[in-house]
Amino acid sequence: MAQIDTEVLAALQAITGEDRVLTDAENLQYYGQDWTRFHQPAPCAVVLPGSIEEVQSIVRLAGAHQLALVPSGGRTGLSAGAVAAKGELVVAMDRINHIADFNPVDRTVRCGAGVITEQLQQYAQGQGLCYPVDFASAGSSQIGGNIATNAGGIKVIRHGMTRDWVAGVKLVTGTGELLDLNRGLIKNNAGYDLRHLVIGAEGTLGLIVEATMQLDRPPGDLAVMVLGAPDMGSVMRVLAAFQRDLELSAFEFFSELALQKVVAHQDLQRPFESVSDYYALLEFEVVDEAAMERAMTLFEHCVEQGWVVDGTVSQSVAQAQNLWRLREDISETITPWTPYKNDISTIISKVPDFLAEVEAVVNSNYPDFEIIWFGHIGDGNVHLNILKPDALAVETFRDQCGQVSKWVFEIVQRYGGSVSAEHGVGLLKKEYLTYSRSPLEIEIMKQIKLAFDPHGIMNPGKIFDF
Amino acid sequence: MAQIDTEVLAALQAITGEDRVLTDAENLQYYGQDWTRFHQPAPCAVVLPGSIEEVQSIVRLAGAHQLALVPSGGRTGLSAGAVAAKGELVVAMDRINHIADFNPVDRTVRCGAGVITEQLQQYAQGQGLCYPVDFASAGSSQIGGNIATNAGGIKVIRHGMTRDWVAGVKLVTGTGELLDLNRGLIKNNAGYDLRHLVIGAEGTLGLIVEATMQLDRPPGDLAVMVLGAPDMGSVMRVLAAFQRDLELSAFEFFSELALQKVVAHQDLQRPFESVSDYYALLEFEVVDEAAMERAMTLFEHCVEQGWVVDGTVSQSVAQAQNLWRLREDISETITPWTPYKNDISTIISKVPDFLAEVEAVVNSNYPDFEIIWFGHIGDGNVHLNILKPDALAVETFRDQCGQVSKWVFEIVQRYGGSVSAEHGVGLLKKEYLTYSRSPLEIEIMKQIKLAFDPHGIMNPGKIFDF
Repeated sequence: MAQIDTEVLAALQAITGEDRVLTDAENLQYYGQDWTRFHQPAPCAVVLPGSIEEVQSIVRLAGAHQLALVPSGGRTGLSAGAVAAKGELVVAMDRINHIADFNPVDRTVRCGAGVITEQLQQYAQGQGLCYPVDFASAGSSQIGGNIATNAGGIKVIRHGMTRDWVAGVKLVTGTGELLDLNRGLIKNNAGYDLRHLVIGAEGTLGLIVEATMQLDRPPGDLAVMVLGAPDMGSVMRVLAAFQRDLELSAFEFFSELALQKVVAHQDLQRPFESVSDYYALLEFEVVDEAAMERAMTLFEHCVEQGWVVDGTVSQSVAQAQNLWRLREDISETITPWTPYKNDISTIISKVPDFLAEVEAVVNSNYPDFEIIWFGHIGDGNVHLNILKPDALAVETFRDQCGQVSKWVFEIVQRYGGSVSAEHGVGLLKKEYLTYSRSPLEIEIMKQIKLAFDPHGIMNPGKIFDF
Repeated sequence: MAQIDTEVLAALQAITGEDRVLTDAENLQYYGQDWTRFHQPAPCAVVLPGSIEEVQSIVRLAGAHQLALVPSGGRTGLSAGAVAAKGELVVAMDRINHIADFNPVDRTVRCGAGVITEQLQQYAQGQGLCYPVDFASAGSSQIGGNIATNAGGIKVIRHGMTRDWVAGVKLVTGTGELLDLNRGLIKNNAGYDLRHLVIGAEGTLGLIVEATMQLDRPPGDLAVMVLGAPDMGSVMRVLAAFQRDLELSAFEFFSELALQKVVAHQDLQRPFESVSDYYALLEFEVVDEAAMERAMTLFEHCVEQGWVVDGTVSQSVAQAQNLWRLREDISETITPWTPYKNDISTIISKVPDFLAEVEAVVNSNYPDFEIIWFGHIGDGNVHLNILKPDALAVETFRDQCGQVSKWVFEIVQRYGGSVSAEHGVGLLKKEYLTYSRSPLEIEIMKQIKLAFDPHGIMNPGKIFDF
């Protein structure tokens, strides 16, 4: 375990109080990693500041001692963006979790970086409003981390990414100065929009300490449809047909193999008897009867066209939830197979060819690999999952998957896609960044980082080597 | 007039062909200015490239000769962002106006920077879709310029700014290299989002040559309501009440004085007999009868609360258009008074106090000034217009308005607002940028510019001195 300099330790304790600086093995392990398990956590200490001023003091101290900082939210990340494996100081935002200044006219609320996503969702509900960004980790992910990774999720097709709900963000730069970016304004064309630069920068430009979040009208009743499609091309045609006449709030997909696993391991039934290669799950707001009628007409049209072979629509909230579980429980269901996971995207229309190419290269090289496809197909975002064959040792499997990654990213590059659709780059994907970004783009990013973080102490080594 | 170096002229002609390089006084005047009239245009020449490759060659040539470039779109800007007053070379995008690769599944289309906004709107319509960003200058403004200024307009409350419809943008940097940013992806968390940095940078980071624009579902029938309100506080309460139950596509406001001028000078009638200090114009999609019923219920509620004294709702498209003219014809109507104009914003809820403070300071210092208020109040964006008293000489009026600007921006600063809500900074507002952005923010912007434009040839002197 990395040791923290005693002088720095004392200075930290002076800033936050002794009991807010943790150095025991258990906490170093706990705060030093996210949901990835590829790196051994090894922070030198964990500090839990209670105010923005304390964060600024910590950063100034770190700058003076060239001590690298790793921001820590809910640590639900899947790209090792919040992993501290090199003796860094972890700055955990748990205590900066105020929810203040709710404004019913602006429909905004000021949140500390440590506010849990679910807390904000519930707070909004209490005000007769809604925070529409939602994903599986909402129960533990924090707003600061959501912003740092521009978290996406299952409602992006209608409500966008976290980016679209940040009306203002406060950032402590690498020199300990506080930037108050955009201040909740809807219209602000006074110079470069640095707010959007900070969103998705994975903590490499500074520590996000507070944000003014935009809230939305609560949705009305939601209906969920699950449709069986003979191939991915049909799934995309179904998407196009529905989007033309209906405002969709979600359009997900999963493969027959994914459905089989979920039904076999969860207390769930198949949506209908007939079997298809792929399934689309779509959700829409039943603003009125006409909306449901439009949906049924669209369904019939898709059946006539041969794009859909069978389908079902929820008649109750409970049914809607059960249909959602067919998609949302996939990830948990396949965990025992220690799956290889990859989060990638292309433009929506290219997804079918893209999937076919990936399957072809994996099948031809590793015919015994089971591929599980699912994802936010309405956004062009697919989650590739490969299950470890029982016979194969974990290490061998991981090595082979390293090769798979290369093939997959080469295809991503040819399709002009993204090596990370929504999970970010972190440590896990930085060696593959060049498949999505040009050398000049990466050079510009590094110069931008230098402008925010001249000492190079803000989450160094994430996204790119710096 | 500035003279272009003969060697550079010859090199330019070799790149684009002789007839694509203009040096006559009339064209220098025409291409050297935008809708502002505060600077005498003085470009050394105007070049009209026909391809991205030609733009790259022009930039490399300019870099080698330290020749400053000014990008030129429709030049409908109101902050002198596209003014060439210092012997710069104007690069006009008029000929790079292809509309290609419409994709019905992604609902995107690839546009040259020189595509006129209205062309894109009509093209989208032809595909059964809609490009929802709209403003008065749509008939001549170009997509490249819209992106460079993050153009807003009258539908921002529902559809956002131009920023929200740019799925990808191609930029030629100050070194002549081509950046292909985001490539139409909906989900892309692979590194910093440089696309959002380029949007609204007013050409200071490079020349926007092409963009992949997102299209939308066409709206259904739209109804327009005009409501009379006793004060701005009531206008805001009306906004909050309607937004809770209805998806508004526009929420504009104007003052009684503005209404008087429009009715007196346009072929229009008052929306109703009763007189109020302020009027709200709101638009919503009549998705069904229920929507209209909800709107009427909300109207009655606002009347009961005393927030609304009178109102009318359009019964036909023609009526809706006439109601819109009450708001949209204001700007043209007051032009003869050579008005002082300022485009500013605060968070929505602070607008009433903000307006009151501005009025107080103007009235107390220049009691003979007539103030005309209107704007996109649903976004917190107000347009301040002061009419020149007939007795006052233009120069004297401009001097006095220079003083007014200082007072206004001091109030903007106290309210945490923006000195430029949607028009950008350009030359006109750069001396006031510090009222909205901190010294550190401006320093970071300059370092970012350096990363994109090391020779400092991209629209230098706009936004900040560089």
